[in-house]
Amino acid sequence: MHVQEKKVHINKPLELNSGKILKSYDLMFETYGELNDEKPGWWDNMIGPGKPINTDKLFVVCMNNLGGCHGSSGPNSINKETNQPYGFEFPIVTVQDWVNSQKVLMDEFKIPKWQFVIGGSLGGMQALQWSLDYPDQINNAIIIAASPKLTAQNIAFNEVARQAITSDPDWCNGDYIKHNKVPKRGLALARMLGHITYLSDESMAKKFGRDLKKDKINFNFDVEFQIESYLRYQGEKFVTSFDANTYLLMTKALDYFDPINEAGFTEKMNQCKSRFLIISFTSDWRFPPSRSEEIVKTLVEYKKDVSYACIESDGGHDAFLMKNDNYFEVMRTYIEANING
Amino acid sequence: MHVQEKKVHINKPLELNSGKILKSYDLMFETYGELNDEKPGWWDNMIGPGKPINTDKLFVVCMNNLGGCHGSSGPNSINKETNQPYGFEFPIVTVQDWVNSQKVLMDEFKIPKWQFVIGGSLGGMQALQWSLDYPDQINNAIIIAASPKLTAQNIAFNEVARQAITSDPDWCNGDYIKHNKVPKRGLALARMLGHITYLSDESMAKKFGRDLKKDKINFNFDVEFQIESYLRYQGEKFVTSFDANTYLLMTKALDYFDPINEAGFTEKMNQCKSRFLIISFTSDWRFPPSRSEEIVKTLVEYKKDVSYACIESDGGHDAFLMKNDNYFEVMRTYIEANING
Repeated sequence: MHVQEKKVHINKPLELNSGKILKSYDLMFETYGELNDEKPGWWDNMIGPGKPINTDKLFVVCMNNLGGCHGSSGPNSINKETNQPYGFEFPIVTVQDWVNSQKVLMDEFKIPKWQFVIGGSLGGMQALQWSLDYPDQINNAIIIAASPKLTAQNIAFNEVARQAITSDPDWCNGDYIKHNKVPKRGLALARMLGHITYLSDESMAKKFGRDLKKDKINFNFDVEFQIESYLRYQGEKFVTSFDANTYLLMTKALDYFDPINEAGFTEKMNQCKSRFLIISFTSDWRFPPSRSEEIVKTLVEYKKDVSYACIESDGGHDAFLMKNDNYFEVMRTYIEANING
Repeated sequence: MHVQEKKVHINKPLELNSGKILKSYDLMFETYGELNDEKPGWWDNMIGPGKPINTDKLFVVCMNNLGGCHGSSGPNSINKETNQPYGFEFPIVTVQDWVNSQKVLMDEFKIPKWQFVIGGSLGGMQALQWSLDYPDQINNAIIIAASPKLTAQNIAFNEVARQAITSDPDWCNGDYIKHNKVPKRGLALARMLGHITYLSDESMAKKFGRDLKKDKINFNFDVEFQIESYLRYQGEKFVTSFDANTYLLMTKALDYFDPINEAGFTEKMNQCKSRFLIISFTSDWRFPPSRSEEIVKTLVEYKKDVSYACIESDGGHDAFLMKNDNYFEVMRTYIEANING
């Protein structure tokens, strides 16, 4: 599946949940469903001609969010007011802010309504927020491997990742770009830790077990077990492609998300017209099935039209990115049944 | 309960699993069951007059292990051959090395036999190792919240902790003492991460939930949630009382432990005369009940005398340090039934 990357400049202020205002900003997105360049998309096994998100029938828009580091305005972008990169000054954004910025893009392109808003993990949270904030612009929300809010344990993992980054001397109080540095150690640690929470105990056991990198124990602190080698590699790779301040912002957006406990939830739910498909994975311990079921329970309480599938998988949280016949069949069936209304 | 701390100097070489030799070393230990000073012991709720490990009837010896930082020889001790602290040069020690050093202490005091060898977590691994390596010197092994070996996920968490320490510039390639530094940031990160794995999701939810430190969200990177405050505090406290190189050594001893898959296990099991009590806790996800049950299964296969209790608790891995009626009753009953033979 080939993908077109596009960027739009929005010259209209966006007021953020924090009270801060982004006077202007870029939004980077991919579209699927037209003939275009050679780069495979991020969710390539799911989106394409004949795939569950079928581009023979659907036009698909995929966002890089504000605060990100792959095209949309974020900490690495130039703040036009200072002609310097934002760095740590880029405002903290929330899931609601993202949805608002996506609505601006939608209006820009005169798209009247999304037939489906679909996302995994933090993307699933955005799909839920869409159904609450723009009841007339969304017909279906597909919320995969998500949670209605983070637990203390989830926040704790995020906090250790943030501390890893901000305690790296090369983070330079967030101003590493100006100092021509990269907080590689902290960002790699954050990624290694993240990876443990994305995989399941079972999948790690299957993939690595206690296999040694060499044929016997070294009695030193070099890499000994395959899992160590894998984690170090993941950490090193990540620092070449991701921005540390973006990582901080993403974890904050996750921590803050809690729409059910926000003022006005009942009113929003009463106005919500969306149908819902909720999907969880058995071995996901970052957002286990019980967290998806909290969403289901709330939606059912408000008499919404909800389908729910808990998919057997040992893929952990990352299962939502993996090929899985049952998962894909649930997606395909729901989408085909709801494609026209 | 009051405790006496004692140190002995052992002037006899100890050959380690790594092949290295400690020519002489100190062993620090606590004894319970005599009248002595004012300091409460580490496992105070469990050990004392009338408590499950009843010092009215038992004389209790509690070790600081080799490689530690509370009295026994370790990275902070002076290497007599160089007159410098060992630092990173202190050899990697294994659970078997610890048991061997404990046997030396036992001989030093002419103790012919332990009635019980009791330990939680890494201490439980030592109790298991005792039953294998010194079948004539142990009558009962009580193995609490332990595992026969680490999983890939367990090793992964250890590896992130090690990377946090060794990537801290103040670690100075392990020579921070000579440079008059302390790798505070790395050690605090390791501790914060460790803490998440010691507590259960449930207990964190109960204790902290999503409670905020202030009355509302700040939209900045200061402490916001109570759990963040707790973790930072735990990290900061730890660096004043624990040594980073000791932390590295302890994680290695954990990673390496795998007696069931070592050569000679069958012979050792056939000679093993110990009775066993194995205890696990329902909410322990570091070493869940299934890991204790692997030990039980193996012991039963070799027709050993095994009692097993899985205790209902939301305390996570740390449950073995907490007061719990069922847990204490199991300990008390087993110890009273086996105190004389």
